[in-house]
Amino acid sequence: MKLIRYGKIGAEKPGVVIDHKRYDTSAFGEDYNEAFFEHDGLNRLAKFIKENKANLSLIDDIERLGCPFARPSKIVCIGLNYAKHAKETNAPIPKEPIIFFKSTTSVIGPNDSIMLPKDSLKTDWEVELAFVIGKKASYVSKEEALDYVAGYVLHNDVSERAFQLERGGQWAKGKGCDTFAPLGPWLVTKDEIANPNNLRLWLKLNGKMVQDGNTDDFIFDIAHVVSYLSEFMTLLPGDVISTGTPHGVGLGFNPPIYLKEGDVIELGIDGLGEAKQAVIAYAKN
Amino acid sequence: MKLIRYGKIGAEKPGVVIDHKRYDTSAFGEDYNEAFFEHDGLNRLAKFIKENKANLSLIDDIERLGCPFARPSKIVCIGLNYAKHAKETNAPIPKEPIIFFKSTTSVIGPNDSIMLPKDSLKTDWEVELAFVIGKKASYVSKEEALDYVAGYVLHNDVSERAFQLERGGQWAKGKGCDTFAPLGPWLVTKDEIANPNNLRLWLKLNGKMVQDGNTDDFIFDIAHVVSYLSEFMTLLPGDVISTGTPHGVGLGFNPPIYLKEGDVIELGIDGLGEAKQAVIAYAKN
Repeated sequence: MKLIRYGKIGAEKPGVVIDHKRYDTSAFGEDYNEAFFEHDGLNRLAKFIKENKANLSLIDDIERLGCPFARPSKIVCIGLNYAKHAKETNAPIPKEPIIFFKSTTSVIGPNDSIMLPKDSLKTDWEVELAFVIGKKASYVSKEEALDYVAGYVLHNDVSERAFQLERGGQWAKGKGCDTFAPLGPWLVTKDEIANPNNLRLWLKLNGKMVQDGNTDDFIFDIAHVVSYLSEFMTLLPGDVISTGTPHGVGLGFNPPIYLKEGDVIELGIDGLGEAKQAVIAYAKN
Repeated sequence: MKLIRYGKIGAEKPGVVIDHKRYDTSAFGEDYNEAFFEHDGLNRLAKFIKENKANLSLIDDIERLGCPFARPSKIVCIGLNYAKHAKETNAPIPKEPIIFFKSTTSVIGPNDSIMLPKDSLKTDWEVELAFVIGKKASYVSKEEALDYVAGYVLHNDVSERAFQLERGGQWAKGKGCDTFAPLGPWLVTKDEIANPNNLRLWLKLNGKMVQDGNTDDFIFDIAHVVSYLSEFMTLLPGDVISTGTPHGVGLGFNPPIYLKEGDVIELGIDGLGEAKQAVIAYAKN
């Protein structure tokens, strides 16, 4: 299945994509949140769709897409998880996964605008394969790790490099600004992705390809990441894990390239769809 | 007011402490969560208590206390925010606040047990003054910052030093293990704390005082922290900010002292009550 959420910010309704068409699933009566994933929501939703397909109403194409699931309890990211990206940032290949959090207030829809933070000069892009946890995970082995994954989603791990690297320790500062986590268009269930460790992912800035990698360049694959993280914290149903970005971020250019008002980012991953984000200046809301 | 939550883990009910007695406030009909703080819950609760004081039922003294508010959207911590603590960890005085996140799955009640993670050898204590956000904060000035604080709470920012410092970058790894954020006993509303930047805070290990500081040693005070954080992320009602620990953590002893099974921690802050945590070995739940 391909899950979506659509409608106004903060009032998104659930839906699904079937044969390139969007259908509303409000009648299922649940948002795609922690309780949904925890209580076998994906299987129940599949059954509901099968039984009610004829009655589902189409969603208008002009409707905005939101993040395809409700606000997670946490967004955990893996740093420097592609060999070539580690090289471009002049960082050594990590011996163990690097973990950091993104603030969950940074989540937006896949085609919403990215707002540059006030006085930001070094906002950068990072196309990433993210996945959503399907059931509570604590001290999970690599062998059983994929049982804990509900599905996959396209993520732009937007990062302010000066905040991240030049403002006194810990990356969290440059990762969690509002609008810094566009997620979607879809949450694609696990059964539709044959091998998450072999997916092409790419990102274009103003029409020009700047990132073009493949998750087969992962230093730590999905099962490794789930198992590793579950040693340091309990992962809850609906939690988002983002697996790092391939080479080609703005920081890696010489001289570096950073986002400015009016830029347009397009990105995609095999099987997970595409997204497009305009970059806008800071404005007090 | 002094807010509490009590009862079994995951099924806590709300209450208040008045004149050292605990009263149930389930009849108020709300948990102390994001929506509660967002919709003027503290004032509405005060009114409810005033009007219903005679009908509130006492809570049995043997009832377990939980964290005095529902799971926050985030727990943001400030690192090295006391001059003497920065010194004991051989760190330079930060020029700007250091920010990191604790996983919200680490939250437990004030007197629950701290479970050592599997294979942990360096689990450490950190008594901290934490506060809860009362309304959405984004780009807030220092002058108006305290308007965004709902109240204060005692926090033990339990930290695994090997995970934090020796496992490959970013402190998040050693801060978010299950049981690593005992919070409470109470959430004390702002009006009861005359000056949060002048409170004694202390922690005893097995009856021996190891931390004995005062928030007047803050490098960055509460207003500074609120204002600063709000430049990097939107703080939501119910979010928890922990302000750093004074000197006297296990890492600072020579040789260092770390927690082991059977240890007992007691801690307290002026006006915010006391808590007591037993240390237990890892056990798969």
